Amino acid sequence: MTTVRAARSRPVIAMLTDFGYRDHYVGTMKGVIASIAPEARIIDITHGIAPQSIMAGAIALGECWRYFPRRTVFLAVVDPGVGTARLPIAVETRAGARFVAPDNGLVWPAVEQAGLKRAVELRSPRFRLPKVSSTFHGRDIFAPAAAHLWRGAPLGAMGPALDAIERIAIPQPASSGRRLVGSVI
Amino acid sequence: MTTVRAARSRPVIAMLTDFGYRDHYVGTMKGVIASIAPEARIIDITHGIAPQSIMAGAIALGECWRYFPRRTVFLAVVDPGVGTARLPIAVETRAGARFVAPDNGLVWPAVEQAGLKRAVELRSPRFRLPKVSSTFHGRDIFAPAAAHLWRGAPLGAMGPALDAIERIAIPQPASSGRRLVGSVI
Amino acid sequence: MTTVRAARSRPVIAMLTDFGYRDHYVGTMKGVIASIAPEARIIDITHGIAPQSIMAGAIALGECWRYFPRRTVFLAVVDPGVGTARLPIAVETRAGARFVAPDNGLVWPAVEQAGLKRAVELRSPRFRLPKVSSTFHGRDIFAPAAAHLWRGAPLGAMGPALDAIERIAIPQPASSGRRLVGSVI
Repeated sequence: MTTVRAARSRPVIAMLTDFGYRDHYVGTMKGVIASIAPEARIIDITHGIAPQSIMAGAIALGECWRYFPRRTVFLAVVDPGVGTARLPIAVETRAGARFVAPDNGLVWPAVEQAGLKRAVELRSPRFRLPKVSSTFHGRDIFAPAAAHLWRGAPLGAMGPALDAIERIAIPQPASSGRRLVGSVI
Repeated sequence: MTTVRAARSRPVIAMLTDFGYRDHYVGTMKGVIASIAPEARIIDITHGIAPQSIMAGAIALGECWRYFPRRTVFLAVVDPGVGTARLPIAVETRAGARFVAPDNGLVWPAVEQAGLKRAVELRSPRFRLPKVSSTFHGRDIFAPAAAHLWRGAPLGAMGPALDAIERIAIPQPASSGRRLVGSVI
Repeated sequence: MTTVRAARSRPVIAMLTDFGYRDHYVGTMKGVIASIAPEARIIDITHGIAPQSIMAGAIALGECWRYFPRRTVFLAVVDPGVGTARLPIAVETRAGARFVAPDNGLVWPAVEQAGLKRAVELRSPRFRLPKVSSTFHGRDIFAPAAAHLWRGAPLGAMGPALDAIERIAIPQPASSGRRLVGSVI
Protein backbone atom coordinates (compact mmCIF):
# COMPACT_ATOMS: atom_id res chain seq x y z
CA MET A 1 0.00 0.00 0.00
CA THR A 2 1.17 3.48 -0.77
CA THR A 3 0.42 6.65 1.04
CA VAL A 4 -0.66 9.59 -1.08
CA ARG A 5 0.64 12.80 0.38
CA ALA A 6 0.46 15.71 -2.00
CA ALA A 7 1.80 18.88 -0.41
CA ARG A 8 -1.44 20.66 -1.16
CA SER A 9 -3.66 18.16 0.59
CA ARG A 10 -6.12 19.58 3.05
CA PRO A 11 -7.92 17.49 5.56
CA VAL A 12 -11.38 16.12 5.03
CA ILE A 13 -13.78 14.44 7.42
CA ALA A 14 -14.10 10.79 6.39
CA MET A 15 -17.05 8.87 7.79
CA LEU A 16 -17.45 5.14 8.39
CA THR A 17 -20.51 3.74 10.16
CA ASP A 18 -22.85 0.77 10.29
CA PHE A 19 -25.93 3.02 10.06
CA GLY A 20 -26.85 1.87 6.57
CA TYR A 21 -28.58 3.86 3.86
CA ARG A 22 -32.25 3.60 4.74
CA ASP A 23 -32.42 5.99 7.63
CA HIS A 24 -31.61 9.64 8.11
CA TYR A 25 -28.97 9.05 10.78
CA VAL A 26 -25.93 9.63 8.60
CA GLY A 27 -27.58 12.68 7.03
CA THR A 28 -28.30 14.08 10.47
CA MET A 29 -24.64 13.72 11.46
CA LYS A 30 -23.65 15.55 8.29
CA GLY A 31 -26.09 18.34 9.14
CA VAL A 32 -24.39 18.72 12.52
CA ILE A 33 -20.97 18.83 10.86
CA ALA A 34 -22.15 21.40 8.30
CA SER A 35 -23.54 23.55 11.10
CA ILE A 36 -20.25 23.61 13.02
CA ALA A 37 -17.70 23.38 10.19
CA PRO A 38 -19.45 24.56 7.03
CA GLU A 39 -16.23 24.49 5.00
CA ALA A 40 -15.35 20.91 5.87
CA ARG A 41 -15.54 18.42 3.04
CA ILE A 42 -17.16 15.17 4.06
CA ILE A 43 -16.27 11.88 2.38
CA ASP A 44 -18.23 8.70 2.96
CA ILE A 45 -15.97 5.69 3.33
CA THR A 46 -18.99 3.46 3.81
CA HIS A 47 -22.09 3.24 5.96
CA GLY A 48 -22.65 -0.38 5.03
CA ILE A 49 -20.48 -2.02 7.68
CA ALA A 50 -22.30 -5.11 8.96
CA PRO A 51 -24.43 -3.92 11.91
CA GLN A 52 -22.44 -3.77 15.14
CA SER A 53 -19.45 -5.50 13.60
CA ILE A 54 -16.54 -3.69 15.20
CA MET A 55 -14.22 -6.16 13.49
CA ALA A 56 -15.50 -5.41 9.97
CA GLY A 57 -15.27 -1.68 10.60
CA ALA A 58 -11.77 -1.98 12.06
CA ILE A 59 -10.53 -3.94 9.06
CA ALA A 60 -12.04 -1.47 6.56
CA LEU A 61 -10.56 1.54 8.35
CA GLY A 62 -7.20 -0.19 8.67
CA GLU A 63 -7.12 -0.79 4.92
CA CYS A 64 -8.12 2.65 3.68
CA TRP A 65 -6.93 5.36 6.08
CA ARG A 66 -3.56 5.82 4.40
CA TYR A 67 -5.13 6.80 1.08
CA PHE A 68 -6.63 9.94 2.56
CA PRO A 69 -5.05 13.38 2.95
CA ARG A 70 -2.54 13.51 5.79
CA ARG A 71 -4.55 15.30 8.48
CA THR A 72 -7.90 13.69 7.72
CA VAL A 73 -10.35 13.40 10.61
CA PHE A 74 -11.84 9.91 10.56
CA LEU A 75 -15.29 9.83 12.13
CA ALA A 76 -16.05 6.17 12.79
CA VAL A 77 -19.15 4.89 14.53
CA VAL A 78 -19.83 1.20 15.04
CA ASP A 79 -21.04 1.33 18.57
CA PRO A 80 -22.85 -1.61 20.13
CA GLY A 81 -21.99 -0.13 23.53
CA VAL A 82 -23.71 3.22 23.05
CA GLY A 83 -25.29 4.24 26.34
CA THR A 84 -22.91 2.07 28.40
CA ALA A 85 -19.63 2.97 30.10
CA ARG A 86 -17.48 2.71 26.96
CA LEU A 87 -15.75 6.01 26.38
CA PRO A 88 -16.01 8.32 23.39
CA ILE A 89 -12.48 9.18 22.27
CA ALA A 90 -10.38 11.28 19.93
CA VAL A 91 -6.91 10.19 18.83
CA GLU A 92 -3.97 11.87 17.15
CA THR A 93 -1.36 9.80 15.35
CA ARG A 94 2.24 10.30 14.34
CA ALA A 95 1.27 9.90 10.67
CA GLY A 96 -1.11 12.85 11.02
CA ALA A 97 -4.45 11.04 10.78
CA ARG A 98 -6.95 11.76 13.53
CA PHE A 99 -9.77 9.54 14.74
CA VAL A 100 -13.05 10.19 16.56
CA ALA A 101 -14.88 7.06 17.65
CA PRO A 102 -16.17 4.95 20.50
CA ASP A 103 -13.33 3.28 22.42
CA ASN A 104 -14.10 -0.28 21.48
CA GLY A 105 -11.24 -1.29 19.21
CA LEU A 106 -12.81 0.11 16.04
CA VAL A 107 -9.93 2.44 15.26
CA TRP A 108 -7.14 0.30 16.71
CA PRO A 109 -5.72 -1.31 13.52
CA ALA A 110 -5.55 2.08 11.79
CA VAL A 111 -4.13 3.80 14.87
CA GLU A 112 -1.56 1.05 15.35
CA GLN A 113 -0.34 1.53 11.76
CA ALA A 114 -0.39 5.33 12.01
CA GLY A 115 1.32 5.41 15.39
CA LEU A 116 -0.59 6.45 18.53
CA LYS A 117 0.49 9.90 19.66
CA ARG A 118 -2.24 11.11 21.99
CA ALA A 119 -5.73 10.05 22.99
CA VAL A 120 -8.39 11.82 25.04
CA GLU A 121 -11.81 11.04 26.34
CA LEU A 122 -14.44 13.28 24.71
CA ARG A 123 -15.81 14.70 27.93
CA SER A 124 -15.96 18.48 27.54
CA PRO A 125 -19.52 19.73 26.93
CA ARG A 126 -18.12 22.53 24.75
CA PHE A 127 -17.57 20.08 21.92
CA ARG A 128 -20.87 18.24 22.17
CA LEU A 129 -24.40 19.22 21.26
CA PRO A 130 -26.14 20.97 24.17
CA LYS A 131 -28.30 17.92 24.83
CA VAL A 132 -26.82 14.43 24.61
CA SER A 133 -29.14 11.48 24.06
CA SER A 134 -28.33 8.00 25.30
CA THR A 135 -28.86 6.40 21.91
CA PHE A 136 -27.36 8.63 19.24
CA HIS A 137 -23.83 9.64 20.20
CA GLY A 138 -22.96 9.81 16.50
CA ARG A 139 -25.05 12.97 16.30
CA ASP A 140 -24.58 14.36 19.80
CA ILE A 141 -20.92 13.60 20.60
CA PHE A 142 -18.91 12.18 17.68
CA ALA A 143 -20.03 14.43 14.80
CA PRO A 144 -19.57 17.66 16.81
CA ALA A 145 -16.15 16.51 18.05
CA ALA A 146 -14.98 15.69 14.52
CA ALA A 147 -16.20 19.06 13.24
CA HIS A 148 -14.47 20.96 16.04
CA LEU A 149 -11.24 19.00 15.52
CA TRP A 150 -11.39 19.81 11.83
CA ARG A 151 -11.77 23.49 12.70
CA GLY A 152 -8.66 23.37 14.86
CA ALA A 153 -9.88 22.72 18.39
CA PRO A 154 -6.93 21.36 20.42
CA LEU A 155 -7.28 17.73 21.36
CA GLY A 156 -6.26 18.51 24.93
CA ALA A 157 -9.26 20.79 25.41
CA MET A 158 -11.71 18.03 24.61
CA GLY A 159 -11.20 15.95 27.71
CA PRO A 160 -8.75 14.10 29.92
CA ALA A 161 -5.81 12.24 28.36
CA LEU A 162 -5.95 8.47 28.17
CA ASP A 163 -2.93 6.25 28.66
CA ALA A 164 -4.17 3.67 26.23
CA ILE A 165 -7.11 2.86 24.00
CA GLU A 166 -8.94 -0.39 23.43
CA ARG A 167 -7.25 -2.83 21.09
CA ILE A 168 -8.63 -5.46 18.81
CA ALA A 169 -6.86 -8.39 17.24
CA ILE A 170 -7.58 -8.93 13.57
CA PRO A 171 -7.42 -12.59 12.62
CA GLN A 172 -4.58 -13.05 10.15
CA PRO A 173 -4.79 -15.70 7.50
CA ALA A 174 -2.11 -18.31 8.15
CA SER A 175 -0.75 -20.73 5.63
CA SER A 176 -0.49 -24.34 6.75
CA GLY A 177 1.20 -26.30 4.03
CA ARG A 178 -0.94 -25.73 0.95
CA ARG A 179 -3.99 -24.72 2.94
CA LEU A 180 -4.84 -21.15 3.77
CA VAL A 181 -6.36 -20.99 7.25
CA GLY A 182 -8.36 -17.96 8.29
CA SER A 183 -11.60 -16.73 9.74
CA VAL A 184 -14.66 -15.72 7.83
CA ILE A 185 -15.95 -12.42 9.17
CA MET B 1 -33.69 17.88 20.19
CA THR B 2 -31.37 20.80 19.91
CA THR B 3 -30.89 23.09 16.99
CA VAL B 4 -27.31 23.77 15.98
CA ARG B 5 -26.93 27.32 14.77
CA ALA B 6 -23.35 28.46 14.55
CA ALA B 7 -23.12 32.03 13.35
CA ARG B 8 -20.86 30.99 10.52
CA SER B 9 -23.24 28.40 9.11
CA ARG B 10 -23.93 28.61 5.42
CA PRO B 11 -26.76 26.85 3.75
CA VAL B 12 -26.41 23.52 2.04
CA ILE B 13 -28.80 21.61 -0.20
CA ALA B 14 -29.96 18.52 1.69
CA MET B 15 -31.56 15.76 -0.36
CA LEU B 16 -34.07 13.12 0.70
CA THR B 17 -35.67 10.78 -1.83
CA ASP B 18 -36.99 7.27 -2.32
CA PHE B 19 -34.92 6.80 -5.50
CA GLY B 20 -32.58 4.25 -3.95
CA TYR B 21 -28.94 3.64 -4.77
CA ARG B 22 -29.07 1.40 -7.83
CA ASP B 23 -30.00 3.92 -10.45
CA HIS B 24 -28.49 7.14 -11.71
CA TYR B 25 -31.48 9.31 -10.80
CA VAL B 26 -30.02 10.92 -7.71
CA GLY B 27 -26.72 11.47 -9.51
CA THR B 28 -28.54 13.12 -12.38
CA MET B 29 -30.27 15.53 -9.99
CA LYS B 30 -26.89 16.38 -8.49
CA GLY B 31 -25.52 17.06 -11.97
CA VAL B 32 -28.35 19.52 -12.55
CA ILE B 33 -27.65 21.24 -9.22
CA ALA B 34 -23.91 21.43 -9.96
CA SER B 35 -24.68 22.96 -13.35
CA ILE B 36 -26.84 25.73 -11.87
CA ALA B 37 -25.21 26.27 -8.47
CA PRO B 38 -21.65 24.93 -8.71
CA GLU B 39 -20.71 26.26 -5.28
CA ALA B 40 -23.59 24.61 -3.46
CA ARG B 41 -22.69 21.82 -1.09
CA ILE B 42 -25.02 18.85 -1.37
CA ILE B 43 -25.68 16.57 1.59
CA ASP B 44 -27.56 13.31 1.25
CA ILE B 45 -30.01 12.75 4.08
CA THR B 46 -31.03 9.44 2.59
CA HIS B 47 -32.27 8.04 -0.70
CA GLY B 48 -33.44 4.84 0.96
CA ILE B 49 -36.93 5.96 1.98
CA ALA B 50 -39.34 3.08 1.36
CA PRO B 51 -40.61 3.53 -2.21
CA GLN B 52 -43.51 5.96 -2.42
CA SER B 53 -43.84 6.15 1.36
CA ILE B 54 -44.68 9.80 1.92
CA MET B 55 -45.15 8.98 5.59
CA ALA B 56 -41.66 7.53 6.07
CA GLY B 57 -40.12 10.49 4.28
CA ALA B 58 -42.15 12.98 6.28
CA ILE B 59 -41.08 11.40 9.57
CA ALA B 60 -37.40 11.35 8.59
CA LEU B 61 -37.45 14.98 7.47
CA GLY B 62 -39.35 16.00 10.58
CA GLU B 63 -36.69 14.41 12.76
CA CYS B 64 -33.56 15.76 11.10
CA TRP B 65 -34.20 19.21 9.60
CA ARG B 66 -33.25 21.11 12.75
CA TYR B 67 -29.73 19.68 12.79
CA PHE B 68 -28.85 21.42 9.53
CA PRO B 69 -27.55 24.94 8.99
CA ARG B 70 -30.23 27.57 9.38
CA ARG B 71 -30.99 28.43 5.75
CA THR B 72 -30.61 24.91 4.35
CA VAL B 73 -32.62 24.12 1.22
CA PHE B 74 -34.24 20.72 1.69
CA LEU B 75 -34.86 19.00 -1.62
CA ALA B 76 -37.29 16.18 -0.89
CA VAL B 77 -38.80 13.90 -3.51
CA VAL B 78 -41.14 11.06 -2.63
CA ASP B 79 -43.67 11.54 -5.34
CA PRO B 80 -46.22 8.86 -6.15
CA GLY B 81 -48.28 11.58 -7.86
CA VAL B 82 -45.68 12.65 -10.41
CA GLY B 83 -47.44 13.46 -13.65
CA THR B 84 -50.77 14.14 -11.91
CA ALA B 85 -52.29 17.40 -10.71
CA ARG B 86 -50.33 17.56 -7.45
CA LEU B 87 -48.33 20.78 -7.34
CA PRO B 88 -44.59 21.21 -7.10
CA ILE B 89 -43.93 23.68 -4.29
CA ALA B 90 -41.28 25.72 -2.49
CA VAL B 91 -41.70 26.79 1.12
CA GLU B 92 -39.99 29.29 3.41
CA THR B 93 -40.24 28.89 7.18
CA ARG B 94 -39.86 31.21 10.13
CA ALA B 95 -36.95 29.10 11.41
CA GLY B 96 -35.10 29.75 8.15
CA ALA B 97 -35.25 26.29 6.59
CA ARG B 98 -36.55 26.11 3.03
CA PHE B 99 -38.21 23.18 1.32
CA VAL B 100 -38.65 22.14 -2.31
CA ALA B 101 -40.93 19.15 -2.83
CA PRO B 102 -44.15 17.81 -4.27
CA ASP B 103 -47.19 19.09 -2.36
CA ASN B 104 -48.28 15.79 -0.89
CA GLY B 105 -47.61 16.16 2.82
CA LEU B 106 -43.96 15.10 2.60
CA VAL B 107 -42.61 18.31 4.10
CA TRP B 108 -45.50 19.07 6.41
CA PRO B 109 -44.15 17.78 9.77
CA ALA B 110 -40.89 19.69 9.25
CA VAL B 111 -42.68 22.81 8.02
CA GLU B 112 -45.12 22.69 10.91
CA GLN B 113 -42.21 22.61 13.39
CA ALA B 114 -40.27 25.30 11.55
CA GLY B 115 -43.27 27.57 11.10
CA LEU B 116 -44.82 28.10 7.66
CA LYS B 117 -44.00 31.58 6.37
CA ARG B 118 -44.64 31.46 2.64
CA ALA B 119 -45.34 28.83 0.01
CA VAL B 120 -45.46 29.05 -3.77
CA GLU B 121 -46.27 26.75 -6.63
CA LEU B 122 -43.18 26.12 -8.77
CA ARG B 123 -44.67 27.29 -12.02
CA SER B 124 -42.20 29.71 -13.63
CA PRO B 125 -40.31 28.11 -16.52
CA ARG B 126 -37.26 30.24 -15.64
CA PHE B 127 -36.49 27.93 -12.74
CA ARG B 128 -37.07 24.64 -14.51
CA LEU B 129 -35.09 22.77 -17.12
CA PRO B 130 -36.09 23.83 -20.64
CA LYS B 131 -37.90 20.57 -21.22
CA VAL B 132 -40.00 19.00 -18.46
CA SER B 133 -40.76 15.28 -18.61
CA SER B 134 -43.88 13.78 -17.08
CA THR B 135 -41.94 11.21 -15.06
CA PHE B 136 -38.83 12.84 -13.61
CA HIS B 137 -39.74 16.10 -11.92
CA GLY B 138 -36.83 15.55 -9.51
CA ARG B 139 -34.49 16.35 -12.36
CA ASP B 140 -36.62 18.78 -14.37
CA ILE B 141 -38.41 20.85 -11.70
CA PHE B 142 -37.25 20.17 -8.13
CA ALA B 143 -33.46 20.08 -8.53
CA PRO B 144 -33.36 23.28 -10.62
CA ALA B 145 -35.67 25.07 -8.16
CA ALA B 146 -33.52 24.05 -5.18
CA ALA B 147 -30.36 25.21 -6.96
CA HIS B 148 -31.89 28.56 -7.90
CA LEU B 149 -33.22 29.08 -4.36
CA TRP B 150 -29.77 28.33 -2.98
CA ARG B 151 -28.34 30.94 -5.35
CA GLY B 152 -30.74 33.56 -4.05
CA ALA B 153 -33.71 33.49 -6.42
CA PRO B 154 -36.67 35.09 -4.63
CA LEU B 155 -39.41 32.64 -3.75
CA GLY B 156 -42.03 35.02 -5.11
CA ALA B 157 -40.53 34.87 -8.59
CA MET B 158 -40.96 31.12 -8.81
CA GLY B 159 -44.71 31.02 -9.05
CA PRO B 160 -48.02 32.03 -7.49
CA ALA B 161 -48.40 32.08 -3.71
CA LEU B 162 -50.34 29.30 -2.04
CA ASP B 163 -52.59 29.86 0.97
CA ALA B 164 -51.83 26.45 2.40
CA ILE B 165 -49.93 23.28 1.68
CA GLU B 166 -50.94 19.66 2.05
CA ARG B 167 -50.78 18.26 5.56
CA ILE B 168 -50.14 14.80 6.81
CA ALA B 169 -50.89 13.35 10.22
CA ILE B 170 -48.10 11.31 11.73
CA PRO B 171 -49.44 8.54 13.94
CA GLN B 172 -48.27 9.20 17.49
CA PRO B 173 -47.60 6.29 19.80
CA ALA B 174 -50.09 6.39 22.65
CA SER B 175 -49.67 4.71 26.00
CA SER B 176 -52.62 2.69 27.23
CA GLY B 177 -51.84 1.41 30.69
CA ARG B 178 -48.63 -0.56 30.29
CA ARG B 179 -49.10 -1.06 26.57
CA LEU B 180 -47.62 1.21 23.95
CA VAL B 181 -50.06 1.54 21.06
CA GLY B 182 -48.79 2.75 17.70
CA SER B 183 -48.61 2.07 14.01
CA VAL B 184 -45.91 0.15 12.24
CA ILE B 185 -44.83 2.09 9.18
CA MET C 1 -33.16 15.51 -22.95
CA THR C 2 -31.75 18.92 -22.35
CA THR C 3 -28.22 19.88 -21.58
CA VAL C 4 -27.71 22.28 -18.69
CA ARG C 5 -24.83 24.62 -19.38
CA ALA C 6 -24.74 27.59 -17.11
CA ALA C 7 -21.80 29.84 -17.93
CA ARG C 8 -20.60 29.62 -14.37
CA SER C 9 -20.42 25.83 -14.28
CA ARG C 10 -17.18 24.36 -13.05
CA PRO C 11 -16.28 20.77 -13.54
CA VAL C 12 -16.85 18.10 -10.96
CA ILE C 13 -15.65 14.52 -10.80
CA ALA C 14 -18.67 12.25 -11.22
CA MET C 15 -18.27 8.62 -10.18
CA LEU C 16 -20.11 5.55 -11.41
CA THR C 17 -19.07 2.06 -10.30
CA ASP C 18 -20.39 -1.39 -9.48
CA PHE C 19 -18.52 -1.46 -6.14
CA GLY C 20 -21.68 -1.23 -4.04
CA TYR C 21 -22.09 0.40 -0.66
CA ARG C 22 -20.88 -2.26 1.76
CA ASP C 23 -17.15 -1.98 1.26
CA HIS C 24 -14.65 0.81 1.58
CA TYR C 25 -13.55 0.71 -2.07
CA VAL C 26 -15.41 3.80 -3.23
CA GLY C 27 -14.32 5.68 -0.11
CA THR C 28 -10.71 4.73 -0.77
CA MET C 29 -10.94 6.09 -4.33
CA LYS C 30 -12.33 9.34 -2.92
CA GLY C 31 -9.44 9.52 -0.48
CA VAL C 32 -7.02 9.24 -3.39
CA ILE C 33 -8.86 12.00 -5.27
CA ALA C 34 -8.90 14.26 -2.21
CA SER C 35 -5.17 13.71 -1.77
CA ILE C 36 -4.37 14.76 -5.34
CA ALA C 37 -7.12 17.30 -6.07
CA PRO C 38 -8.39 18.54 -2.69
CA GLU C 39 -10.58 21.21 -4.30
CA ALA C 40 -12.39 18.84 -6.62
CA ARG C 41 -16.04 18.25 -5.88
CA ILE C 42 -17.02 14.61 -6.18
CA ILE C 43 -20.54 13.58 -7.13
CA ASP C 44 -21.74 9.99 -6.91
CA ILE C 45 -23.83 8.99 -9.90
CA THR C 46 -24.29 5.53 -8.45
CA HIS C 47 -22.21 2.68 -7.11
CA GLY C 48 -25.09 0.26 -7.39
CA ILE C 49 -24.59 -0.84 -10.99
CA ALA C 50 -25.24 -4.59 -11.21
CA PRO C 51 -21.87 -6.27 -10.57
CA GLN C 52 -19.76 -6.48 -13.71
CA SER C 53 -22.60 -5.31 -15.92
CA ILE C 54 -20.83 -3.13 -18.43
CA MET C 55 -24.13 -2.78 -20.26
CA ALA C 56 -26.03 -1.41 -17.26
CA GLY C 57 -23.23 1.05 -16.52
CA ALA C 58 -23.03 2.15 -20.14
CA ILE C 59 -26.77 2.82 -20.29
CA ALA C 60 -26.76 4.81 -17.03
CA LEU C 61 -23.80 6.93 -18.10
CA GLY C 62 -25.33 7.48 -21.53
CA GLU C 63 -28.52 8.78 -19.92
CA CYS C 64 -27.06 11.16 -17.37
CA TRP C 65 -23.78 12.64 -18.61
CA ARG C 66 -25.42 15.63 -20.32
CA TYR C 67 -26.97 16.89 -17.08
CA PHE C 68 -23.54 17.57 -15.58
CA PRO C 69 -21.39 20.69 -15.91
CA ARG C 70 -19.70 20.93 -19.26
CA ARG C 71 -16.14 19.86 -18.42
CA THR C 72 -17.08 17.17 -15.88
CA VAL C 73 -14.61 14.31 -15.46
CA PHE C 74 -16.57 11.07 -15.40
CA LEU C 75 -14.77 8.36 -13.45
CA ALA C 76 -16.46 5.10 -14.38
CA VAL C 77 -15.35 1.67 -13.17
CA VAL C 78 -17.19 -1.50 -14.10
CA ASP C 79 -14.24 -3.66 -14.85
CA PRO C 80 -14.59 -7.43 -15.16
CA GLY C 81 -11.28 -7.41 -17.04
CA VAL C 82 -9.15 -5.85 -14.31
CA GLY C 83 -5.75 -7.48 -14.36
CA THR C 84 -6.08 -8.56 -18.01
CA ALA C 85 -4.89 -6.86 -21.18
CA ARG C 86 -7.80 -4.41 -21.43
CA LEU C 87 -6.49 -0.87 -21.42
CA PRO C 88 -7.19 1.90 -18.95
CA ILE C 89 -8.18 4.99 -20.96
CA ALA C 90 -9.00 8.67 -20.77
CA VAL C 91 -11.21 10.36 -23.36
CA GLU C 92 -11.98 13.94 -24.34
CA THR C 93 -15.17 14.76 -26.22
CA ARG C 94 -16.31 17.59 -28.43
CA ALA C 95 -19.11 18.40 -25.97
CA GLY C 96 -16.50 18.95 -23.24
CA ALA C 97 -17.17 15.92 -21.05
CA ARG C 98 -14.15 13.79 -20.18
CA PHE C 99 -14.11 10.12 -19.26
CA VAL C 100 -11.68 7.91 -17.32
CA ALA C 101 -12.52 4.22 -17.44
CA PRO C 102 -11.47 0.75 -18.52
CA ASP C 103 -11.66 0.34 -22.30
CA ASN C 104 -14.47 -2.15 -22.40
CA GLY C 105 -17.38 -0.24 -23.89
CA LEU C 106 -18.54 1.27 -20.60
CA VAL C 107 -18.20 4.86 -21.75
CA TRP C 108 -19.05 4.30 -25.41
CA PRO C 109 -22.72 5.39 -25.49
CA ALA C 110 -21.89 8.61 -23.64
CA VAL C 111 -18.78 9.25 -25.76
CA GLU C 112 -20.69 8.57 -28.95
CA GLN C 113 -23.29 11.18 -27.98
CA ALA C 114 -20.69 13.68 -26.81
CA GLY C 115 -18.45 13.20 -29.84
CA LEU C 116 -15.09 11.47 -29.52
CA LYS C 117 -12.26 13.97 -29.82
CA ARG C 118 -9.20 12.24 -28.37
CA ALA C 119 -8.44 9.09 -26.42
CA VAL C 120 -5.26 7.91 -24.72
CA GLU C 121 -4.10 4.86 -22.89
CA LEU C 122 -3.37 5.66 -19.24
CA ARG C 123 0.20 4.45 -19.26
CA SER C 124 2.37 7.16 -17.70
CA PRO C 125 3.40 6.30 -14.13
CA ARG C 126 3.29 10.01 -13.25
CA PHE C 127 -0.49 9.87 -13.09
CA ARG C 128 -0.83 6.62 -11.17
CA LEU C 129 -0.18 5.70 -7.57
CA PRO C 130 3.44 4.65 -7.04
CA LYS C 131 2.43 1.02 -6.63
CA VAL C 132 -0.25 -0.48 -8.88
CA SER C 133 -2.08 -3.60 -7.71
CA SER C 134 -3.53 -6.13 -10.15
CA THR C 135 -6.97 -6.02 -8.55
CA PHE C 136 -7.84 -2.43 -7.71
CA HIS C 137 -7.17 -0.18 -10.67
CA GLY C 138 -9.99 2.09 -9.46
CA ARG C 139 -7.73 3.19 -6.64
CA ASP C 140 -4.32 2.87 -8.31
CA ILE C 141 -4.93 4.05 -11.89
CA PHE C 142 -8.41 5.49 -12.51
CA ALA C 143 -8.90 7.71 -9.44
CA PRO C 144 -5.44 9.33 -9.75
CA ALA C 145 -5.95 9.91 -13.48
CA ALA C 146 -9.33 11.56 -12.92
CA ALA C 147 -7.90 13.78 -10.19
CA HIS C 148 -4.94 14.84 -12.34
CA LEU C 149 -7.22 15.52 -15.33
CA TRP C 150 -9.44 17.64 -13.10
CA ARG C 151 -6.36 19.60 -12.02
CA GLY C 152 -5.44 20.31 -15.61
CA ALA C 153 -2.99 17.61 -16.63
CA PRO C 154 -2.93 17.43 -20.43
CA LEU C 155 -4.46 14.26 -21.83
CA GLY C 156 -1.52 13.81 -24.16
CA ALA C 157 0.91 13.50 -21.23
CA MET C 158 -0.95 10.54 -19.78
CA GLY C 159 -0.09 8.01 -22.42
CA PRO C 160 -0.10 7.13 -26.11
CA ALA C 161 -3.02 8.17 -28.30
CA LEU C 162 -5.54 5.55 -29.35
CA ASP C 163 -7.19 5.49 -32.77
CA ALA C 164 -10.40 4.08 -31.41
CA ILE C 165 -12.00 2.85 -28.21
CA GLU C 166 -14.12 -0.19 -27.54
CA ARG C 167 -17.75 0.10 -28.55
CA ILE C 168 -20.84 -1.49 -27.17
CA ALA C 169 -24.25 -1.86 -28.78
CA ILE C 170 -27.18 -1.01 -26.56
CA PRO C 171 -30.25 -3.05 -27.45
CA GLN C 172 -32.96 -0.68 -28.65
CA PRO C 173 -36.59 -1.50 -28.02
CA ALA C 174 -38.33 -2.09 -31.35
CA SER C 175 -42.03 -1.87 -31.97
CA SER C 176 -43.60 -4.70 -33.88
CA GLY C 177 -47.23 -3.92 -34.46
CA ARG C 178 -48.67 -3.38 -30.98
CA ARG C 179 -45.90 -5.29 -29.26
CA LEU C 180 -42.80 -3.65 -27.86
CA VAL C 181 -39.83 -5.94 -28.37
CA GLY C 182 -36.71 -5.42 -26.30
CA SER C 183 -34.19 -7.00 -24.02
CA VAL C 184 -34.37 -7.18 -20.26
CA ILE C 185 -31.03 -6.17 -18.82
